[in-house]
Amino acid sequence: MTSRAPNTLPNGVFAAVLTPLRDDYSIDHEAYAEHCRWLLANGCDGLAPMGTTGEANSFSVAERIEAFERLVEAGVPASKMMVGTGCCSITDTVALTRHAVALGAGGVLMLPPFYYKNVSDDGLYAAFDQVIQRVGDARLKLYLYHIPPMSGVPISHALIGRLIRRYPDTVVGMKDSSGDWNNMKTTCEMYPGFRVYAGTEKFLLPILAAGGVGCISATTNITCRLAAEVYAKRATGEGQGLQQTLTRVRDALEKYPVIAALKRLTAERTGHEGWRLPRPPHLPLDDARFEALQADLQKLGFVAP
Amino acid sequence: MTSRAPNTLPNGVFAAVLTPLRDDYSIDHEAYAEHCRWLLANGCDGLAPMGTTGEANSFSVAERIEAFERLVEAGVPASKMMVGTGCCSITDTVALTRHAVALGAGGVLMLPPFYYKNVSDDGLYAAFDQVIQRVGDARLKLYLYHIPPMSGVPISHALIGRLIRRYPDTVVGMKDSSGDWNNMKTTCEMYPGFRVYAGTEKFLLPILAAGGVGCISATTNITCRLAAEVYAKRATGEGQGLQQTLTRVRDALEKYPVIAALKRLTAERTGHEGWRLPRPPHLPLDDARFEALQADLQKLGFVAP
Repeated sequence: MTSRAPNTLPNGVFAAVLTPLRDDYSIDHEAYAEHCRWLLANGCDGLAPMGTTGEANSFSVAERIEAFERLVEAGVPASKMMVGTGCCSITDTVALTRHAVALGAGGVLMLPPFYYKNVSDDGLYAAFDQVIQRVGDARLKLYLYHIPPMSGVPISHALIGRLIRRYPDTVVGMKDSSGDWNNMKTTCEMYPGFRVYAGTEKFLLPILAAGGVGCISATTNITCRLAAEVYAKRATGEGQGLQQTLTRVRDALEKYPVIAALKRLTAERTGHEGWRLPRPPHLPLDDARFEALQADLQKLGFVAP
Repeated sequence: MTSRAPNTLPNGVFAAVLTPLRDDYSIDHEAYAEHCRWLLANGCDGLAPMGTTGEANSFSVAERIEAFERLVEAGVPASKMMVGTGCCSITDTVALTRHAVALGAGGVLMLPPFYYKNVSDDGLYAAFDQVIQRVGDARLKLYLYHIPPMSGVPISHALIGRLIRRYPDTVVGMKDSSGDWNNMKTTCEMYPGFRVYAGTEKFLLPILAAGGVGCISATTNITCRLAAEVYAKRATGEGQGLQQTLTRVRDALEKYPVIAALKRLTAERTGHEGWRLPRPPHLPLDDARFEALQADLQKLGFVAP
């Protein structure tokens, strides 16, 4: 590693981008790029494709590489993307990370190896260390992905500290999807300058006040305009009021299987039925639940875009 | 699917085969085949390569395909192998399963897609259904892999029933690594003829008495001779006594990080230092713990082979 690369990822509102499928469960690249452009035109400062919401782990490495390549070819700016690259196997994580960096990704979002549970911090450190060494590229900007409800493998504050000390120009931030406000607040306090994104827009203003840089959320696929307004007015009383509305909308969406619900809402917005389909083990939202969801949003006066 | 294939996997004692590595964490194919042959010559009726103990999910699909291919080329009988093929992505699971079946594997051991937690039985059914349909090969003998402590995704009795009814000649058995005796006993009772292997040799005689067919275990990489003796004498009082010894040895081994401990013991047996190394997030067993383990085994009068 020879020279330091600047951080190119913006602060603010990111969507954990949904991945549209064709009938045979392959990725619909055209609809994917279109959705990315729509998100950037409707309030998103940046994008996080191939995260939990993007069903990343439901695709093979080859499918993920092609998906990112096609997005970049379609003109979605790589510098605004934090691409999910963390797999169970360091071999796969290295392949995806190298590819993302080579194409100019602003950052990568890296799960710890997540099959084995109750592994030691020493073991997780060894895994991240191997990946960084093997990628061997000073342009790499790595964001740790802390999402214990799915991964089952938390990233401790001690581990963050150790990685930052060893790789200060590489391990630059985190997405905290624990849902645990105290955990993200403590990270901001312990490691000033470390770029913490909350994993939900519920904590958009709180995380900014605590020293974090923004949010990366599943539901901003739908709430992006409102979230952007909250972010723009973050220093004002109006911003605080809008945050309350945003939080209530998020709470309403959270009651449904979130990937299926967001895909169904996106199918409505775009008029493209194909959007409804997630890959198994997820299933499309049925009509009854969709109607209930619409009623819930209506009660809040939220008009889905 | 045109013709039914017979079940070729034996009943009895299986090892969840350890995967030896070279210094650069690549698979040591020669040591792997040698260990497989040693296990079959030292009490194992069958082998389960690329399971949890084999660090399967720490390797890429390409690495796993090469590993199985090299084993078969080296003369390890495919018909005695239940090969781990379950990944987070159905794309990957299909690729691995097709390959295993094409090479004549006696069965495949299939995890459910394990990244997403709290998914519905309908969603898991859809995932297995997709895989079976896409593999589209009547030779496929699928064993469900129930290991909630690692996968976080249990396979319910209702789901088993539904899969058996739809695919009676394909979904033929299960490895139950829940550690929950009642769960495996109930499976045997509910689905007679369904081939249940206990995920630990502690339950070898109990599972046989309940109608199951054997055990597939991490620790039989070390206890294979004793486990084979228990199996051979299963109808006798001596077998019951030996089961107690076997259980105590298993309990002793379980107190240590099991992959690292078993690899260290195998390094001792073979005189091949390379055996000590697991892939991150696992780490080699340090000397202090290894000495403690040896002392524990000695107290039980167990001589590791």
